[in-house]
Amino acid sequence: MSNLLDNYKDINDIKSMSLDEQKQLADEIRSFLIDKVSRTGGHLASNLGVVELTLSLFNVFDLNKDKLIWDVGHQAYIHKILTGRKDKFEGLRQFGGISGFPKRCESDYDFFETGHSSTSISAALGMARARDLKNENYDVVAVIGDGALTGGMALEALNDVGYRKTKLIIILNDNQMSIGKNVGGVSSYLSKLRVDPKYNRLKEEIEYALKKIPNIGKGVAKYLERIKNGIKQMVVPGMFFEDMGLKYLGPIDGHNIKEVTEVLSKAKNIDEPVIIHVITRKGKGYEFAEKNPGKFHGIGPFYCNSGELCVTSSDTYSKAFGDELVSISENKKNVVAITAAMRDGTGLKNFSQKYPDRFFDVGIAEQHAVTLAAGMSREGLKPVFAVYSTFLQRAYDQILHDICIQKLPVIFAIDRAGIVGDDGETHQGVFDLSYLTHMPNMTVMSPKCIPELKTMLRWSMEQDYPIAIRYPRGGDNLGASLEPLKNFKLGTWETLYNKGQIALVAQGKMVQHAVLVKERLEKEGISVRVINACFIKPLDKRLLEDLVEEGVNIVTIEDNVIRGGLGSYVLEFVNTLNSKVKVLNLGFRDEFIPHGKPDILYKLHGLDTEGIVKSILKIV
Amino acid sequence: MSNLLDNYKDINDIKSMSLDEQKQLADEIRSFLIDKVSRTGGHLASNLGVVELTLSLFNVFDLNKDKLIWDVGHQAYIHKILTGRKDKFEGLRQFGGISGFPKRCESDYDFFETGHSSTSISAALGMARARDLKNENYDVVAVIGDGALTGGMALEALNDVGYRKTKLIIILNDNQMSIGKNVGGVSSYLSKLRVDPKYNRLKEEIEYALKKIPNIGKGVAKYLERIKNGIKQMVVPGMFFEDMGLKYLGPIDGHNIKEVTEVLSKAKNIDEPVIIHVITRKGKGYEFAEKNPGKFHGIGPFYCNSGELCVTSSDTYSKAFGDELVSISENKKNVVAITAAMRDGTGLKNFSQKYPDRFFDVGIAEQHAVTLAAGMSREGLKPVFAVYSTFLQRAYDQILHDICIQKLPVIFAIDRAGIVGDDGETHQGVFDLSYLTHMPNMTVMSPKCIPELKTMLRWSMEQDYPIAIRYPRGGDNLGASLEPLKNFKLGTWETLYNKGQIALVAQGKMVQHAVLVKERLEKEGISVRVINACFIKPLDKRLLEDLVEEGVNIVTIEDNVIRGGLGSYVLEFVNTLNSKVKVLNLGFRDEFIPHGKPDILYKLHGLDTEGIVKSILKIV
Repeated sequence: MSNLLDNYKDINDIKSMSLDEQKQLADEIRSFLIDKVSRTGGHLASNLGVVELTLSLFNVFDLNKDKLIWDVGHQAYIHKILTGRKDKFEGLRQFGGISGFPKRCESDYDFFETGHSSTSISAALGMARARDLKNENYDVVAVIGDGALTGGMALEALNDVGYRKTKLIIILNDNQMSIGKNVGGVSSYLSKLRVDPKYNRLKEEIEYALKKIPNIGKGVAKYLERIKNGIKQMVVPGMFFEDMGLKYLGPIDGHNIKEVTEVLSKAKNIDEPVIIHVITRKGKGYEFAEKNPGKFHGIGPFYCNSGELCVTSSDTYSKAFGDELVSISENKKNVVAITAAMRDGTGLKNFSQKYPDRFFDVGIAEQHAVTLAAGMSREGLKPVFAVYSTFLQRAYDQILHDICIQKLPVIFAIDRAGIVGDDGETHQGVFDLSYLTHMPNMTVMSPKCIPELKTMLRWSMEQDYPIAIRYPRGGDNLGASLEPLKNFKLGTWETLYNKGQIALVAQGKMVQHAVLVKERLEKEGISVRVINACFIKPLDKRLLEDLVEEGVNIVTIEDNVIRGGLGSYVLEFVNTLNSKVKVLNLGFRDEFIPHGKPDILYKLHGLDTEGIVKSILKIV
Repeated sequence: MSNLLDNYKDINDIKSMSLDEQKQLADEIRSFLIDKVSRTGGHLASNLGVVELTLSLFNVFDLNKDKLIWDVGHQAYIHKILTGRKDKFEGLRQFGGISGFPKRCESDYDFFETGHSSTSISAALGMARARDLKNENYDVVAVIGDGALTGGMALEALNDVGYRKTKLIIILNDNQMSIGKNVGGVSSYLSKLRVDPKYNRLKEEIEYALKKIPNIGKGVAKYLERIKNGIKQMVVPGMFFEDMGLKYLGPIDGHNIKEVTEVLSKAKNIDEPVIIHVITRKGKGYEFAEKNPGKFHGIGPFYCNSGELCVTSSDTYSKAFGDELVSISENKKNVVAITAAMRDGTGLKNFSQKYPDRFFDVGIAEQHAVTLAAGMSREGLKPVFAVYSTFLQRAYDQILHDICIQKLPVIFAIDRAGIVGDDGETHQGVFDLSYLTHMPNMTVMSPKCIPELKTMLRWSMEQDYPIAIRYPRGGDNLGASLEPLKNFKLGTWETLYNKGQIALVAQGKMVQHAVLVKERLEKEGISVRVINACFIKPLDKRLLEDLVEEGVNIVTIEDNVIRGGLGSYVLEFVNTLNSKVKVLNLGFRDEFIPHGKPDILYKLHGLDTEGIVKSILKIV
């Protein structure tokens, strides 16, 4: 047979293919994906799971008028392939290349940009209502995973969808996983739908049973009729969704193009909201990914034949956090760990295995995670919520309202702060210093190196107020070897070098840059001080006062946006001192930062060693 | 009969009362509440609705060990009365008096502080899990309204509760309302549970019918058995909750102390999560409140005999917003308005009546509201999301991730910015400038007076990027009469007075203070400039450059926390200019602001006219 994928030109080409050809196309796409992603890295398992689903969607809908929204969006690779971006996969997630998520700048067929979970139903509903108000005629389809469905905003959206009966098609892509295994009542319910014949076939069974009962008189018939009506109304698979006001179709096999296409066609003709329950398998068709879909969720470059990673990361902040938490928890029995569907990514795997009773995976539910921690700490536990910086944004109000007002001693272990890299705009962790430092009662810390994350975590355990510890993705790779601080004192910074009329006040890993900058400047004959602002809040006001008194100029360095960050905070304070020292704020500019290798992106914002040196030389 | 309320001393006194006495106590509490709240103002209707429920809770649980959490918390007045705070109701919501919400500083029986909706299940679950880990033995009860139940985080929590089967009692206080009428699929479902006999009594009915069918042979019996089993599993009222893994009890009449007490006692003995569906009536027992529970939700002082307000507010920012939106929408057919259960409070009542097809109340669901708006704007509508500043905190991530990255032209009409007053810590709108100005692509505006809100809204309609307009509660009462700006230019401020070596750069209503300050300082022989920073983002960089060039010192004045707010933003920019001008930032200190009259609170933070004058005189 010819190569169907290479000849695929128009988004609607699939409509003229036979079923066999479509199956062949699916195979070709799988090989293509495995090959390409093995070289660039990317989200493999979730894409392998939706090959047939995507083809079926393209079969039934015409994206020149219909709209398709991928929740989270990391499973839109096939969508990208079929909408003219096949030849760009060499540059997948590379700086300047195509994104791993839908992007309107890449294609008119990327109707809405996603990245964080659980947004698709809201966005699709907005589009569908716009369509209706404008008296237009097209379909809007949202594809959402069973993991994303438990995010609060998806449930808020479902509540709204069913109420007004807006015509909308929701595909529930049920692969029984978030990044890891799914949890929660909704998940249990979906399992019942999948496997329990009582749910799956009960309606048919009962109707059959009723038919078998002979009609033995008018009185009895009346009762039978009652039962039938009752059952008709009550015994429907997908009751949960029907209760919310949606029509439920399924469950169906998401790898059966014929079946999915048929059900989608049926849904197209229903003039109210429909949810189609599609069962898929993450990693489908690639042995290693089927066996270990978590590993192949978001993966770096790997060898196709073995499924082994080309480069395995060694010591990371995540691992150090996880190891230290396990060690601390040995003696401190009140320590509990919470994750929102990110057990492995945050380094909590060992903890979860060693202390299963003290480990809580709440699913994709950051808001609930934070207030759950609040409740736990009220009753004497010491909760640690490990979460990526970008996802903690979901719980802004809960941190402020449920933790800070009551000053509850919860620890936030904020991973993936600063530049995350490959995932781009939606995932960079460059706002947390800004959104946390304006919260009263909050303490914000950042370790300058991996060993310091451990000492910081251990110290935080002994404090009785909320503490956020933020640290970057990956490990320490700058070559600046630093001793960790062992004893912390609230609002007291560490001075690493104390000579010169310029002080570099840096935070987190940027302290390592500051040390390298110091070395570089020494070669130019310039001495600078290096200060580890291990507390971003509270500031070390005394140290700042001393610097001002000595007339030392200050350069702040942070891997956060400048607006409202560490530098801005230092400036606010120094400004109250009626001083004449100069303050230079280095950090990210006021713009979203696209995908690309962290090195490139730091450099682009002048936050590599050379960039910092240049900025300082300008003011010397 | 004697006065039972006056003699009520201990939280467990109720346990020794007869049912008749308890009914009398309920009557006395109602009279007390109506009398007290008529004088101070407060949340009346919701409290009148839970008198019997609260008594029943105190009947069954012992708060010396059991924990009780009130969702939102404005319905905890009876709880406060019964826990030793009856004599403090003269000072309800007054500065220095008791709060309208649970406060740990007031009583050990206020176990968890609430204010925003939908947090109680998460917090209660946290406490219950702490109890289990510590092998302790007590009950944890959360009381949540049907309105609050549709908030995403409550659903996230339900998902978690049912999964691990943690013993926990959730009271669903179903009064069929949020502040206004409830909306959404969950609400429709609850209505069915309430009124539809098919749901309410189906189980009994079907079982009865089955019994009536004579046993006519073994074959048939087999089928009947199948039906019975099926029905047992499927036909349960509250399926929705049972599907989530909770045991459902109800619905029951929440004004029947005997019935509620019995069901609570039953729930106490069930060793898994239970949800008790209690039907109550908002405003129960006070004619005017029953007829108009929305008006009596949060109300100012009123005349008991007529239910009329003592002081009716005249022109407010909310009303101006609503009026202008109605007027604009006459010609602009693509304008739609969204509210999260705050139609009347945000001034959208007229709009909802005039343009019902273009009005969307999504329930208590701020996250969904924002991304719904994003979807609508993608398809050519012009959505305006009207929301209180404090509640928009819930949608921080959605604004950043779903609106700003795509730069979608959604308008945020942010009401109740600055000091809100009576509701205290949880409701002050003093963080929005901080959390909005660090979002790339966001424009933030603030009108200096009511007429300017109208011109600003009209101008914003013509722009094609996200705009947040924030304005205070109430009206213009400072006596500074100002002409509204009619033509805005992105990032261009208005100079009202242009003489002197100090420039007051103020935002919103603080511009009125600035004008009054100018007049006061003139009497001291000091001339100051007054600048209306109508754009908080982007700043008027050119104007700031001019000031710096002229050597004019700058005083920023805002009704937001200083950290990360307007003043901090101005400072960040001025600092890049290598200038010698001084900048003084006036705004709220880094602390939560309690309840009290706004005048008192502004004064406390030095933000009344005299306070600002004093601060300026110090630096002159």
